[in-house]
Amino acid sequence: MEKVFSYAHLYNFTQSIFKAIGCSDADATTATTTLLSADVRGIDSHGVARLTGYIRLWDAKRINATPDIKTVHETPSTAVVDGDAGLGLVVAPHAMQIAIDKARNVGTGWVSVKNSNHFGIAGFHAMMALEHDMIGIAMTNASALVAPTFSTERMLGTNPIAVAIPAGNQPPFVADFATTTAANGKLELLQRKNAAAPIGWVQDKEGNDSTDANALKTGGVLLPLGSDREHGSHKGYALGSIVDIFSAVLSGASYGPWAPPFPAYVPMPLNMPGQGLGHFFGAMRIDAFRTAEEFKHHMDNWIERFRSATPAPGHEKVLIPGDPEREMEVIRMKEGIPVTESVIAELNIVGEQFGYRL
Amino acid sequence: MEKVFSYAHLYNFTQSIFKAIGCSDADATTATTTLLSADVRGIDSHGVARLTGYIRLWDAKRINATPDIKTVHETPSTAVVDGDAGLGLVVAPHAMQIAIDKARNVGTGWVSVKNSNHFGIAGFHAMMALEHDMIGIAMTNASALVAPTFSTERMLGTNPIAVAIPAGNQPPFVADFATTTAANGKLELLQRKNAAAPIGWVQDKEGNDSTDANALKTGGVLLPLGSDREHGSHKGYALGSIVDIFSAVLSGASYGPWAPPFPAYVPMPLNMPGQGLGHFFGAMRIDAFRTAEEFKHHMDNWIERFRSATPAPGHEKVLIPGDPEREMEVIRMKEGIPVTESVIAELNIVGEQFGYRL
Repeated sequence: MEKVFSYAHLYNFTQSIFKAIGCSDADATTATTTLLSADVRGIDSHGVARLTGYIRLWDAKRINATPDIKTVHETPSTAVVDGDAGLGLVVAPHAMQIAIDKARNVGTGWVSVKNSNHFGIAGFHAMMALEHDMIGIAMTNASALVAPTFSTERMLGTNPIAVAIPAGNQPPFVADFATTTAANGKLELLQRKNAAAPIGWVQDKEGNDSTDANALKTGGVLLPLGSDREHGSHKGYALGSIVDIFSAVLSGASYGPWAPPFPAYVPMPLNMPGQGLGHFFGAMRIDAFRTAEEFKHHMDNWIERFRSATPAPGHEKVLIPGDPEREMEVIRMKEGIPVTESVIAELNIVGEQFGYRL
Repeated sequence: MEKVFSYAHLYNFTQSIFKAIGCSDADATTATTTLLSADVRGIDSHGVARLTGYIRLWDAKRINATPDIKTVHETPSTAVVDGDAGLGLVVAPHAMQIAIDKARNVGTGWVSVKNSNHFGIAGFHAMMALEHDMIGIAMTNASALVAPTFSTERMLGTNPIAVAIPAGNQPPFVADFATTTAANGKLELLQRKNAAAPIGWVQDKEGNDSTDANALKTGGVLLPLGSDREHGSHKGYALGSIVDIFSAVLSGASYGPWAPPFPAYVPMPLNMPGQGLGHFFGAMRIDAFRTAEEFKHHMDNWIERFRSATPAPGHEKVLIPGDPEREMEVIRMKEGIPVTESVIAELNIVGEQFGYRL
């Protein structure tokens, strides 16, 4: 059902495809590194499995392989970047680098981006800050699959938030999560197994609780983190909204139900109020607050204390955000990355288009 | 069971008490306005009901009524503020004002605070930014009541996050929420009614699901937003952790299980790694991204579109974060603020200490 490829093998294939659509060498390298960071960290839904989707968007002329990415407005600590419909995989690292440069100058940097598209995993961009002894923040809006509390209508995307915080001897704290109870990728796993979804993940077209992992195919919606009002779904709805506003209303991208779709066969929304998808990035220099040495010492203490918190019966230990992805990275860089047969078949169709085979 | 007081009456009483413990006129005014903003907005657990708690902390010499609040480190866009053990109700607006001033100069301002204590409702501080056409952000750590995913140990407070975003003709977007499934105040309401808590709010001492609204009195814990791993509690745990780190590890306050308690009779934690509670504030000038006029036009559009989202059966309409508190404010400024008999009795004991009566 799946085949295992080395990182290098997937890298060469992916980079070749990005070059074939016209990306510069530098952009193809950036896009490949960004995209495959998902596979390496175990977030299979956002990695090479999406390469076909990006190429279909390029086919449909919704992605520009040679964008002129521009800062259209700025202050010492902020910028708005116009991605010129470039690959989000390239636009996002460009914008995050601006946030880092501004943080170097005035302590923090905050960049809102318009006219972009899917940027891979948020965590990759947030983690760019770590080597500079900065805290990194990344978020993005996405096409609407989520209903607000008390609604049946798709108004928000899964709108993820990532925050990466450096430590000293301990590995960094890296949180990266959709603002829904469950990401769409988890539903796709259940669909493949013909398994039911837990109550609280989705709602059917009429607004009833549902365990149908296919509910989104029949007009259902994903639920905000918290699942229902009694369990705090208004908080998940607020978080998803904040991501939408910071990413798209601040920058001039298209927001809420008007966010552009990822599948190229889905028509663009009518009357879009802005350009493309939006992202938001932040970088905060640690020593703009206290010395990096002191901070890292206390982050080590924080992490060690949380790791040693009493586990609940049946659980071995308490995890720190980023632990599961880090463990996966070690395994996959050594043993390779599994890709399902159906993804391989799709990739080879795209490969044929340009004379490559996975 | 309760009596209704005018805002002015509660204001005069509260201000007199703060003056009586030695606060300057200006600080007493700030502390009173901050504290009562909770009652006005319907968050009864964080308003005048807590006045006794603050005075008991002052009695115990854990609160300094005449603090020398100092900026101990800064860059153009950041600052660390030492609250000198002052009332959080005074320290927090001081620090938020610094964030606003920095945003005026360089686009954004970010302030981490140490050596403070409870600051009332996060939303009040975030909303200070609105009149300046800025987005406001406020968060705070708090004494530990929440267990991380897979744990039974109290490691985090309810660590709220507030984000206030200006609009044009529409009222502002104001999200203000604990990073737990339910705030402790909601459990207290159930305790008074002898009612059961929904599954997913608390866990007993052994780590089992519990419907006991008194579970925290027998070693139980509050659960992070998401309730359990299957419903995303690792996301609530990550959010609460981010609040703790931004508020306390960045500033040099005491973090995680070492955050100081609010009840003055609870001993301070041993080996505290920092000073007092921590807060984190942010202000982002809208026109550091795009003109305030354009932004507000799109925020109005965003809000109107979300208000008109299809309601689920049994629900009248979709709410915008801040709507319920705004409706309550109109009612309470007109009809007065209800205070329970037990809170009145406590307040009158504090009043007697200084020669005042509610």
